[in-house]
Amino acid sequence: MLRFGMFEVAELGRTTSKEEYKEYEEAFRVGLLTVQYDLRETAGFPVILVIGGADRAGCHEILNLLHDWMDPRYLEANVFETPTSEELERPHFWRYWRTLPAAGRIGIYYREWTLRAIADRLLGRIDETELDQRLRHISTFEKALTDDGTLLLKIWLHVPKSEAKKRLMGKGVSSRVACKPTKQDRLLVKHYDDVHDIAERVLRRTGSGEALWNVIESTDFRYRNVTVAQWIIRSLTKRLAEPPKKAPAPPVSQQNATTVLDQVDLSKALSKPGYEAKLQKGWRRLAKLSHKLHRKGISSVFVFEGWDAAGKGGVIRRLTAAMDAGHYRVLPIAAPTDEELAHHYLWRFWRNLPRAGHTAIFDRSWYGRVLVERLEGFASENEWKRAYAEINDFEEQIVQQGSVVLKFWLHVDADEQLRRFKAREKVPFKKYKITPDDYRNRERWNDYEIAADEMIQRTSTEFARWELIAANDKRWARIQVLETVCDELEKRLEKSRR
Amino acid sequence: MLRFGMFEVAELGRTTSKEEYKEYEEAFRVGLLTVQYDLRETAGFPVILVIGGADRAGCHEILNLLHDWMDPRYLEANVFETPTSEELERPHFWRYWRTLPAAGRIGIYYREWTLRAIADRLLGRIDETELDQRLRHISTFEKALTDDGTLLLKIWLHVPKSEAKKRLMGKGVSSRVACKPTKQDRLLVKHYDDVHDIAERVLRRTGSGEALWNVIESTDFRYRNVTVAQWIIRSLTKRLAEPPKKAPAPPVSQQNATTVLDQVDLSKALSKPGYEAKLQKGWRRLAKLSHKLHRKGISSVFVFEGWDAAGKGGVIRRLTAAMDAGHYRVLPIAAPTDEELAHHYLWRFWRNLPRAGHTAIFDRSWYGRVLVERLEGFASENEWKRAYAEINDFEEQIVQQGSVVLKFWLHVDADEQLRRFKAREKVPFKKYKITPDDYRNRERWNDYEIAADEMIQRTSTEFARWELIAANDKRWARIQVLETVCDELEKRLEKSRR
Repeated sequence: MLRFGMFEVAELGRTTSKEEYKEYEEAFRVGLLTVQYDLRETAGFPVILVIGGADRAGCHEILNLLHDWMDPRYLEANVFETPTSEELERPHFWRYWRTLPAAGRIGIYYREWTLRAIADRLLGRIDETELDQRLRHISTFEKALTDDGTLLLKIWLHVPKSEAKKRLMGKGVSSRVACKPTKQDRLLVKHYDDVHDIAERVLRRTGSGEALWNVIESTDFRYRNVTVAQWIIRSLTKRLAEPPKKAPAPPVSQQNATTVLDQVDLSKALSKPGYEAKLQKGWRRLAKLSHKLHRKGISSVFVFEGWDAAGKGGVIRRLTAAMDAGHYRVLPIAAPTDEELAHHYLWRFWRNLPRAGHTAIFDRSWYGRVLVERLEGFASENEWKRAYAEINDFEEQIVQQGSVVLKFWLHVDADEQLRRFKAREKVPFKKYKITPDDYRNRERWNDYEIAADEMIQRTSTEFARWELIAANDKRWARIQVLETVCDELEKRLEKSRR
Repeated sequence: MLRFGMFEVAELGRTTSKEEYKEYEEAFRVGLLTVQYDLRETAGFPVILVIGGADRAGCHEILNLLHDWMDPRYLEANVFETPTSEELERPHFWRYWRTLPAAGRIGIYYREWTLRAIADRLLGRIDETELDQRLRHISTFEKALTDDGTLLLKIWLHVPKSEAKKRLMGKGVSSRVACKPTKQDRLLVKHYDDVHDIAERVLRRTGSGEALWNVIESTDFRYRNVTVAQWIIRSLTKRLAEPPKKAPAPPVSQQNATTVLDQVDLSKALSKPGYEAKLQKGWRRLAKLSHKLHRKGISSVFVFEGWDAAGKGGVIRRLTAAMDAGHYRVLPIAAPTDEELAHHYLWRFWRNLPRAGHTAIFDRSWYGRVLVERLEGFASENEWKRAYAEINDFEEQIVQQGSVVLKFWLHVDADEQLRRFKAREKVPFKKYKITPDDYRNRERWNDYEIAADEMIQRTSTEFARWELIAANDKRWARIQVLETVCDELEKRLEKSRR
């Protein structure tokens, strides 16, 4: 059978002569340094270079070559070994998110995510369904980054079967830095044909749009080095010449519309004695449940969104009252730091994911992207529109890793909000909470309603539903949240028992 | 024998009545929230609250009480469990440094560092010498933070022996949140008298200056809660009323003086063939050595300081050429990010300490504090003067953890520097490296010499010596550094074999 897939195209035996190589080497170095320094000066976007392929020796040589030809001070090589205990307690992609390069920098990922998926499948660590899921996450991950402006360069170094075997014996390796084959390398060569088949499929699935794989023939090291260097220079030069994409978004302003929020029955209320009894009962339940979850190492993520003065803080305190302060952290989300601004907007949330058995309580969250950032024009239309899918994927990964994700929208009407603003202004230590911005936001109540409605519709998923809480009556809201949290944690515990 | 030590003073049986408590509770809440919000708004300094003492139930109740009475969104509770693999690969204090609160925030450390030292000693995990060393590091750590403006509040909750036993059985515990005694708790109570003796000694050693312990009687929970709350309110109010301490430093400007740098023989040079031979030989050595160190999990920290254009980048690249790009990271130190600015100046270096078997190469470093920051007045005289001790302690901890610390000062004279500036201006992709600042700095050559001289004298320690490298001849400098690195890594390997 004559096969001619994506890899066979990379078996044409292309070479670069020693003389040619010598002649151009200096030009490549200068070219690489130039694009690198330009990138650093403009600091407009991050660059991610993925070096993959069964040719480990080749990948290793390219990694070192780039450190040699470029300025290593602005390269961040990421070579992952066995996952650390901190990594094991979070979703699979946490190790990548936490190491993402900031704008202006180049992060190199050595044989990561895609190749790891192939190896995991080959070694039977994941089955076909899990592979499928992993590939989907890879695509969403890469798309989230490229959509956000990251330049993603993916290189796959290919050698034919005969060559792969030779390399395992250390032949054809040029590098100064030794690279002994690991058990996994031996396996990949032993099962060359299987790897070939899985890889072809995987590369097609993960190579679309701005995340295309560049399959490079790696048999002749000179040809390979030249091709990789040229490609990096060309891609970066092209991208640096492009004007920045961001266009300010036209703020939403639509006619009054019926939204999902209108269905919330704001007349719900609780009497004080009824409240106290339910509170005590809820606390006893939550105290037990959260200790059990801690012992089992199950993490939780609670998200609170809603109108200003809807009582998020009070609700949160009625939860934490029954939880162990050593096991949760409340994270108020305000303006991002400059490190956070130099990354994808989800980075600040990834870096704050709780460790096993701990709870992160977000007072406002990543949903700011599709609420305030959308309405104030901080995010372009493209940005907030694609945020729905990015957020769904983010939450799915947290749930798949075994954690609980609970999301609450605290709903009040405009009159109740005004009453609370006025009341706050009278309490000395709460005054700081009310600013002219708060009154300004009230004028856009309708726009916020529309944005919230769309958010709830698009991000209420089977793994992380939105809970709409009537909050005109604070007591009602607190008990609703407390009881919902207990119910959901109970469900999660039951699942872990099965 | 009638004993009347620091703990006995806290056994006077002080109580607060139920009525009094009820009356004042609301005032404490408001008081705590007020200082907390003031702190947040001014964001002038971080607050660290250490809750210690053998009374675990009491510590636990205070931790939860503060989360209840204060706004948990601006509290960061740190309860450490078994060290993670990432923590085990760094010095003991890394887990504390990486979790330090930023200015304007309150970090609570639950039974940490001091109590841990006592427990480690009691359980025989460390001997007397190690305890002594640990206490010294605690003092330096706390002093570094308080000197930098951190408000450090240390509470030690004390109960008499009879009470301690009762609490172990769950008596006298008021909290809603359960707190089952651990093995360690049982041991601490069983060896109450030993703990008492060690603790008394340890608390004296670690309670001086701005790091005084406040030993609080914990038998009556109302008295304890009231005392803790009052003390926090009082301490924060007092501190918030103080004007900020920072005074701009008068820049050094002294007469020409003979410095240690004058002893460097700048005529040293290497011929090209001699250089090439030594380079190849050095690379072979370094490649082998760095692989061995990686396998053994020994980390290294290389620091490069020296005049602008002294050739730091070139020297670093001659090292990395023989190292595996997956095992090192070059860290260029430029202006700090805003997160870094909100912490102690050493924080950014602590967070970048390498994991086991990896190398961090700092292109400029924490020594900026006593060089550029001193000379440009970014650090006050007090700040840079105490930095010497802080830096020595920092490096000592890295070395004690088993890592290698190597520090190089690359020395050129002013004429050579000027020649290099001019040459750089002619190379397109190096142009960016020369700014008007560089020329301006030349005018202060003498001041920089004096600062460097003092730095070298004060921070050349037995565990981390400065190597002064004659760098007028680039080849000579590169070989000197390469060979020194090899020699030192070899020594470290030999030590690990013994």
